[in-house]
Amino acid sequence: MPLGFTGARLDRADQIRTDAAAFATAVADPRALCLVLDGIDFVPGECGGLRWEPLGDGDDRAPMLLGLDEAGVPHFVREPAPSQRIDARSRTVMRLLPLLSGEEAALYGGARSLVDWHARHRFCAVCGNPSALFRGGWGRKCDSCGSEHFPRVDPVVIMLAECGDRVLVGRQGGFPPGFFSALAGFVEPGESLEEAVARELFEEAGIRVSDVSYVASQPWPFPSSLMIGARAVTDDPALTLDTTEIEAAMWVDRAEVRAALAGDMGAPFMAPPPLAIARYLLEDWAG
Amino acid sequence: MPLGFTGARLDRADQIRTDAAAFATAVADPRALCLVLDGIDFVPGECGGLRWEPLGDGDDRAPMLLGLDEAGVPHFVREPAPSQRIDARSRTVMRLLPLLSGEEAALYGGARSLVDWHARHRFCAVCGNPSALFRGGWGRKCDSCGSEHFPRVDPVVIMLAECGDRVLVGRQGGFPPGFFSALAGFVEPGESLEEAVARELFEEAGIRVSDVSYVASQPWPFPSSLMIGARAVTDDPALTLDTTEIEAAMWVDRAEVRAALAGDMGAPFMAPPPLAIARYLLEDWAG
Repeated sequence: MPLGFTGARLDRADQIRTDAAAFATAVADPRALCLVLDGIDFVPGECGGLRWEPLGDGDDRAPMLLGLDEAGVPHFVREPAPSQRIDARSRTVMRLLPLLSGEEAALYGGARSLVDWHARHRFCAVCGNPSALFRGGWGRKCDSCGSEHFPRVDPVVIMLAECGDRVLVGRQGGFPPGFFSALAGFVEPGESLEEAVARELFEEAGIRVSDVSYVASQPWPFPSSLMIGARAVTDDPALTLDTTEIEAAMWVDRAEVRAALAGDMGAPFMAPPPLAIARYLLEDWAG
Repeated sequence: MPLGFTGARLDRADQIRTDAAAFATAVADPRALCLVLDGIDFVPGECGGLRWEPLGDGDDRAPMLLGLDEAGVPHFVREPAPSQRIDARSRTVMRLLPLLSGEEAALYGGARSLVDWHARHRFCAVCGNPSALFRGGWGRKCDSCGSEHFPRVDPVVIMLAECGDRVLVGRQGGFPPGFFSALAGFVEPGESLEEAVARELFEEAGIRVSDVSYVASQPWPFPSSLMIGARAVTDDPALTLDTTEIEAAMWVDRAEVRAALAGDMGAPFMAPPPLAIARYLLEDWAG
């Protein structure tokens, strides 16, 4: 079972992004397709799946190259219009994701992150003047000061702390009632993944861990995180919660995790949804 | 042997960054220290090591909290002056790094990334108006549109492809003569670490890999990368180089890697320097 938002199969074709003539050829390809979006949400096709339309040329918004399929057909998404209002935090689209295959969800996730980044980076952070799209949509350049800017990917560590035969799950105030998940936090400048895992577990739960080990990763397009799943070990289960970050946390054993994953009514908590790496971490740990 | 730029021991004290009163108390602490920088380069102390001065209050530039030491002494670095010219790509400071302990190099690396980020993000990318420092220096806020911005950490995959008992090393045009390293590239929106490893190896060297496995990570402050080291396996050693990225690449066996790591004159290449995770990957592989 691949992780959520992984498995996109388009060739990103970086060599076309950086070659103006090759990019123009791709745009002019009569087979070229454009992903239909409503803001940054996808619009389901009539039979489910993503909706594509011929790229055509009746739109002022610049096409951005998502990649080529196995037949060489170029797939695009258009830059957001300046007037377009985008709420990057909205996750209403999550309800529609079951209409997509895993491959389509991955493709959509990357396109969503890209469109959202452009919508929030119309101006140059160095000098404040407007910037414009370049490299086939995979960057912006400032005509005023010459600075180049590239889409953000924000690494996040998400981890299960283990103590004996139990792992730590926690919940933020905004979670639906009963839901618990793995703790998580953004990696900061100046730290390794392993250091970020240790810092976050100490900050949020007051535990000191050792033996941090990598488990798996996934992109998370809300708006553009790279989730890096890990495990860590502690020998002291005493918790000191940072209640501004975590509303509650608890140690759970394998039987309890399995019950939660199975959706049992008697389980002590509700598990994260299928697309989330937190669920994968719990499944991986519970065996 | 810890990886380069890891091992900083200050408590980053996020709870102080987000609490104006606690932050003011830390700034007013008579023990508070400020890291002395020349642009974004450190200035060695008289006996080596980083140079610190009392934080004081005779400087218009806002202090940014690096963290607390074990005695609770707050350590700061000041935001860059608007007039300050910073060349984030300059690595002349690399020559001075042997003057620092590993812990100091890690602390400096994080401070350098933070200062550099502020210098290049004085304006709001959403609306183009000036933004101002908040959260104790760990973010900027736009008074005009209310957007919040946080320091970038750019995840980079760096990997050894294995084929039988050999691994792939390559060199970019800008490398010093004879130097080869692991291939590397930025993770893009919409892909996992494992997918980024496979994509980069195909783009740069034309090889298809499977079995991507994580090895280690390090922060890299030029300007603010998170290097994620991995291995991957291929059964076809045929190379197709993207010569815009890679000038040359070759498969090397364990004896050749060991000779390069030992600095032997007869080695077929010169190995990456001690602080780089590429060297760690080669050491780890060569056993």
